[in-house]
Amino acid sequence: VAVATENETYDAFAGRVAEFWDLFKVYWLLDWDQRTMMPPGGAAARADQLATVTTVMYERLTSAEIGDLLEELRDYEESLDYDSDEASLIRFTRREREKFKRVPPELCGEMARASSQALSEWDGAKDDSDFARMVPYLKRNFELRREYVACFEPAENDYDHLLDEFEPGMTTAEVATVFDQMKAGLLPLIAEIAERPQVDDSFLSSPWPIDAQKEFEAKMLERFGFRPDSWRMDETGHPFASSVSPTDIRITTKHRLEDLHSIFSSMHEFGHGLYEHQVSPALARTPLARGASLGIHESQSRMWENLVGRSRPFWRRFYPELQQTFPDKLGGVELEAWYRAINKVQPSLIRIESDEATYNMHIILRFELEQEILDGEVSIEDAREAWNARMKEYLGVAVPDDAHGILQDMHWSAGHIGYFATYSLGNIVSLQLWERIRAEIPDLDEQIEAAEFGVLREWLRENVHRHGRKFRSKELLQRVVGSSIDSGPYLNYLRAKLGEIYGLS
Amino acid sequence: VAVATENETYDAFAGRVAEFWDLFKVYWLLDWDQRTMMPPGGAAARADQLATVTTVMYERLTSAEIGDLLEELRDYEESLDYDSDEASLIRFTRREREKFKRVPPELCGEMARASSQALSEWDGAKDDSDFARMVPYLKRNFELRREYVACFEPAENDYDHLLDEFEPGMTTAEVATVFDQMKAGLLPLIAEIAERPQVDDSFLSSPWPIDAQKEFEAKMLERFGFRPDSWRMDETGHPFASSVSPTDIRITTKHRLEDLHSIFSSMHEFGHGLYEHQVSPALARTPLARGASLGIHESQSRMWENLVGRSRPFWRRFYPELQQTFPDKLGGVELEAWYRAINKVQPSLIRIESDEATYNMHIILRFELEQEILDGEVSIEDAREAWNARMKEYLGVAVPDDAHGILQDMHWSAGHIGYFATYSLGNIVSLQLWERIRAEIPDLDEQIEAAEFGVLREWLRENVHRHGRKFRSKELLQRVVGSSIDSGPYLNYLRAKLGEIYGLS
Repeated sequence: VAVATENETYDAFAGRVAEFWDLFKVYWLLDWDQRTMMPPGGAAARADQLATVTTVMYERLTSAEIGDLLEELRDYEESLDYDSDEASLIRFTRREREKFKRVPPELCGEMARASSQALSEWDGAKDDSDFARMVPYLKRNFELRREYVACFEPAENDYDHLLDEFEPGMTTAEVATVFDQMKAGLLPLIAEIAERPQVDDSFLSSPWPIDAQKEFEAKMLERFGFRPDSWRMDETGHPFASSVSPTDIRITTKHRLEDLHSIFSSMHEFGHGLYEHQVSPALARTPLARGASLGIHESQSRMWENLVGRSRPFWRRFYPELQQTFPDKLGGVELEAWYRAINKVQPSLIRIESDEATYNMHIILRFELEQEILDGEVSIEDAREAWNARMKEYLGVAVPDDAHGILQDMHWSAGHIGYFATYSLGNIVSLQLWERIRAEIPDLDEQIEAAEFGVLREWLRENVHRHGRKFRSKELLQRVVGSSIDSGPYLNYLRAKLGEIYGLS
Repeated sequence: VAVATENETYDAFAGRVAEFWDLFKVYWLLDWDQRTMMPPGGAAARADQLATVTTVMYERLTSAEIGDLLEELRDYEESLDYDSDEASLIRFTRREREKFKRVPPELCGEMARASSQALSEWDGAKDDSDFARMVPYLKRNFELRREYVACFEPAENDYDHLLDEFEPGMTTAEVATVFDQMKAGLLPLIAEIAERPQVDDSFLSSPWPIDAQKEFEAKMLERFGFRPDSWRMDETGHPFASSVSPTDIRITTKHRLEDLHSIFSSMHEFGHGLYEHQVSPALARTPLARGASLGIHESQSRMWENLVGRSRPFWRRFYPELQQTFPDKLGGVELEAWYRAINKVQPSLIRIESDEATYNMHIILRFELEQEILDGEVSIEDAREAWNARMKEYLGVAVPDDAHGILQDMHWSAGHIGYFATYSLGNIVSLQLWERIRAEIPDLDEQIEAAEFGVLREWLRENVHRHGRKFRSKELLQRVVGSSIDSGPYLNYLRAKLGEIYGLS
């Protein structure tokens, strides 16, 4: 590590943990490359490479050497401030090591291998809308996660162990409670909106020349804070953000001639990227240089995408630029019509293109279904029927094919089982943070309208980003907003925003 | 490994060695990414990542586990054919392990870290033509190599140990003998040419629109055998080829408006890529999936660049296409004028742009100078003066600045000290192979003129590529051409080709 402390044992410990972290980041670079650059022929070797890096990484973390150092550090740890970098790294490593001591490194490697293989297959299977092709791969991914779960003492739900990888410290039951509140608020709202005259978004129809999209996005991201000395933007099949280090942030998008979704997707991935970019430099080569949880991470992406990017102040500034970019398409469309169109609520097939209200129903579907698959209540073979039936039940839409159904997301292929819930948790948290931000930055709307994002970025850095994974999500939320997770602000926000657009009482 | 044998000990051994190889390939992907994709901000973390991957990789190779398995395998090894995949992997691993058991894995890691840091610095230092900036980095690289050399029993020359990384089994003295023959043949040839009327290449002056260059190269490489399912082509500062697996080949080039050098550079890197692409699939996840030596590797790149790419048959077919690509520039230039221009001999500053005759003098300069630096006869601080003086002595040219002098190549920054000689060895070997190829493919010229490269590729696969590193370069050469390295065919080729162009007796 860069900065030596006065404790040699700690420095030796931090040096070993830094190597674990180097390998972890190498894993993510391999993953980024697989999803953006790798020719298809690289798939088999990449799966092996990911497996080996994962195996070696967890061998390192669970080594006797780190174990001994952690024991030696007990007194030192007691002497430190809880918030200090050193105490936080010891605390985090101890917990993570206890967890992974239970899991054979080879199983972790095998999970990485199977996920990489499945992800390679998913690209083509999705293109061909061929779920049958994915069945053996998805079976393998779920099977390996059952093996993983079996490494631990039984929890209330098996799924708790998967959720813990993405939202550490939160249980399935806790998420289910939050989601029940969400359903109770959202379903009536969606139903009320369905009774109202629909927003006209016919002017959003194809085509949207891709070079022009890129030009607008580049200017927008530059204003947000994207800098080419520390960031990249590339094309991919299913957009994601990755960080190889806090000053090597890689976001991705998918441009299509048919729509402008990439603009919002770019905002979303920028939100993720900014979180990792603004972690304290002192934590850069430690496992703390990462978001507190995926839920907190999604609060950042959804904040930039929706609270900034689907707001009136933002488009007051950027819509004239967008009109100049697409004069033929938008020259005659008023700002207000644009604002209403990009906030239109309409049950639809694709999660990442769905509106803010129905989005969460897509998540709840996945959250429920992946538990049922893990528990064996639904087989992979039957998962497609279950998906389609539930789309009908929750959103009233008929799924025409797998590409627009169960194959649309890469998560289950990529082994991210237990991840989906964090998107809706992120939505909820984004509003809890936003209320606090509004209180502390009274002229936030004016700043957004002036395309000045520095104060917002700085607030996020100071209150959320710089801590990395020092604190778990519950603890972080308590520190920043003084409460636990609460869907109230989010549901209020949606009702107010959409109520105005749709003229609800 | 994919295919299990009947020997469980061997399979366990091959599995462990496969992990070493996975890490080795990960190293090369990290390196590729640093040189093509990584934002500058990623440099510090990348150096750490390369160091850790290198350390872990050599820990794996030198582990007691692989040592014990190798001991257990002695009887099995005896029972195998020397040429078999299994015997070759055991033989290779034994040798490599014996070598690296002497070197602390942390030193290997530190060499990787320092090289990555130096390479990051080199980009900007070269742009600014600022050698002073590189001095501390180059010192560090040479210093670490002295530490590396000190791990071994003294050899005739310290430099032998560095050369062995690139040209295993060949000594400094052997290379020096070959190079003395080269000098004896080349210096009079260059002098004779200097007496003759110079070839007119004034039509090669700038500008050459880059999109058009790319279009021509893409068609050319497609005919050579570049396939996007297994290959990539990207821009970089100093072109190189890399393979992440035999079906994930990454070549790079550098396009400039000023000249067409990228066309020849692309041919060169294609030659490297094809070698790695055509290694036997059965060797893919073993350390044998690599060129026998850098000298043999360069024989492949120089063959495609010069023996194919600077030949009349090739341009009889491709020159009309090139004329169509650049009608304003080349529409009025005859094929013969083009052929003479691209084979013009003129002492110049930049190695990779130099002609076939003077090229080797650039190499000999570097080969001599890096030995002198390693041995402490020339300090890094004085290396620039030494470089410039020798450029004057060997080629009669005055170096105007460091970018056109000692900073032009990335090798010393990238830690490739001991590499340069292999370019000229490659030139020599390329002709030894070419004579054999001509004997076995009598209509080679007709095939090249028909843009049919399949038979040539297949010959190279069968005789050279598929073996990977099963045999050392001397052994491979003996098998394929029945002799040891011999500069005769290369010097004869140059005299015949250039003699015709310049009207020498």
